[in-house]
Amino acid sequence: MQRNIHRMAEFFSEGPTKLRPHFKAHKTTEIARRQLAAGSCVGLTCATAGEAEVAAGFCEDILIANQVIGLDKCARVAILAKSGIDIKVAVDSELGVEQMSKAAQDTETTVGVLVEVNIGFRAGTPPGEAAVVLGRRISDTPGVELRGLMGYEGPAAGIEERDRRGTMAKQALDRLLSTVHPFREAGFPTDIVSAGSTGTYDMTGRMDGVTEIQAGSYVLMDTAYRKEGLPFEQAFWVLGTVLSRPSPGSVSADCGHKSCSQDHGMPDVRDVPGATVTFLADEHAMIAVPPDSTLKPGDRLQLVPSHIDPTINLHDVFYALEGDTVVGIWPIEARGYAEQRMAMG
Amino acid sequence: MQRNIHRMAEFFSEGPTKLRPHFKAHKTTEIARRQLAAGSCVGLTCATAGEAEVAAGFCEDILIANQVIGLDKCARVAILAKSGIDIKVAVDSELGVEQMSKAAQDTETTVGVLVEVNIGFRAGTPPGEAAVVLGRRISDTPGVELRGLMGYEGPAAGIEERDRRGTMAKQALDRLLSTVHPFREAGFPTDIVSAGSTGTYDMTGRMDGVTEIQAGSYVLMDTAYRKEGLPFEQAFWVLGTVLSRPSPGSVSADCGHKSCSQDHGMPDVRDVPGATVTFLADEHAMIAVPPDSTLKPGDRLQLVPSHIDPTINLHDVFYALEGDTVVGIWPIEARGYAEQRMAMG
Repeated sequence: MQRNIHRMAEFFSEGPTKLRPHFKAHKTTEIARRQLAAGSCVGLTCATAGEAEVAAGFCEDILIANQVIGLDKCARVAILAKSGIDIKVAVDSELGVEQMSKAAQDTETTVGVLVEVNIGFRAGTPPGEAAVVLGRRISDTPGVELRGLMGYEGPAAGIEERDRRGTMAKQALDRLLSTVHPFREAGFPTDIVSAGSTGTYDMTGRMDGVTEIQAGSYVLMDTAYRKEGLPFEQAFWVLGTVLSRPSPGSVSADCGHKSCSQDHGMPDVRDVPGATVTFLADEHAMIAVPPDSTLKPGDRLQLVPSHIDPTINLHDVFYALEGDTVVGIWPIEARGYAEQRMAMG
Repeated sequence: MQRNIHRMAEFFSEGPTKLRPHFKAHKTTEIARRQLAAGSCVGLTCATAGEAEVAAGFCEDILIANQVIGLDKCARVAILAKSGIDIKVAVDSELGVEQMSKAAQDTETTVGVLVEVNIGFRAGTPPGEAAVVLGRRISDTPGVELRGLMGYEGPAAGIEERDRRGTMAKQALDRLLSTVHPFREAGFPTDIVSAGSTGTYDMTGRMDGVTEIQAGSYVLMDTAYRKEGLPFEQAFWVLGTVLSRPSPGSVSADCGHKSCSQDHGMPDVRDVPGATVTFLADEHAMIAVPPDSTLKPGDRLQLVPSHIDPTINLHDVFYALEGDTVVGIWPIEARGYAEQRMAMG
């Protein structure tokens, strides 16, 4: 983990573009502190108001790289702004502007906003004129302050083959960057032009006009990103115990999909030659093994998750290791739903 | 939910076979209490020692329908036995017997065990002689008390077509029940012969020799079990908010796979004609909608999960409704890993 953190910080020490590590990947203060301490960072990226509330405990510059919709959530963001956090949210709709404006004015504060441009995925205005129209709306609205632009090249980031990933990322980013000039022409700020991700950091992180890169998975990695040949090392695993060997060719272990996500495919088994996860049930991993495998009930094994974010979200703590020694138990503070925890009182 | 609970209790009020509701489905005291109060129950089923620790707060008869491996976990089970809980665990290996025996003796108590018979899935001894050999080993070992047999017809339970499901369930159960006679011949108890599940409750729940049925999903249901035409109603949903409408044919909402599992397929959208979930990202559901759909940012929607257990496991509370009124906020107490919470102190 420390090597990954320093490798990424070093990459961003060279260019004008900086790093904004994504808190959603691990939701863990102890990790985010180390990312920020390594340098080259402008602040943190969060996915939700709840993550931002945790991140605000140790970081003063936060981007929620997501639409914040709902007056309750907008109010929580406004309270962070009021408390002195330089917080920014992505906006792509009239309603997003209206609600954040109302919450900010009710709290007697101002919240920063970035216009999110649709670069091919889940949200955003069309590039160019539509983004300028929304930018104008924001500039004319009290309680919100236009700070720049954002786009997320998610579909590109997941492409295994590097050349095609680069081509797709460039196509996506061209849509975002094509909006920079009209924004400047309109007199809008462009000192934040934020994009992502771990899969494309060294491509979009060197594109002129991009000021910061949101990247999360690099810090601990997973098998999906490993396939992209990135210069980061696998740094977390799910520890399991073999429960049963119901046949010579299979074992079951106590690490099912309540402890390891499978949305990016089955996890790998670390350092057990020939062992393949064939099925995840709630509490069981079914693992095919060679008939001469010595794996038996009681043996420990480690799964290498295919997707870092949802796997970590299933757990309450990390056990931090140096070599084989546990040197820390790190709570995954931002896991779950802050509003649900608040509801419990 | 109340109708589901009473429908299942009514079914088991008729036969000699009783119900042992599975706590793993919802991990929630407020729900389990209602299941037990409806009658026809012998106690609760749990999947883990951590669930049993929560269940022991309100239920004195608990089966952990799973191998408990590891001296730390065995010790936690033994403490429950010592505190007066009639607790039983499944065992299919020498190591399982040894470890539970040691933990029970160290705690000066006795833990009940069922021999798990492999009826085609994740664990268990072969039926017949091998089960008797393990039963003998248990009978000869201090600290553990042989109580009966168990099998889980998991693969059968998931078959949509009822006749084929019944055939498969019978084949699986025949393996379990073929071991009852040799067990009796050997002088072993068979007053507990436990099987599952929601998908097969009315088939295996009427088979001679089966004393109890483990069933969990019936209480709140999901789309996977709905396809089996069971007489239970969908009774929980994941509430989301539309964040963006990036194109006329799609919206994104704030309910991704960190709030709704997809291991049994995409969730449905409740009561929105023509809306189909096409992709779940960490924090986003991408939903295809007809171009004339009025769905817009700020609208609420409800996902119908495809799999109840892992979806509930992502949340900290239920909001309990009567009609449209929230009448309770129910903590999902057994979510996560008790050992991780203990590690945090």
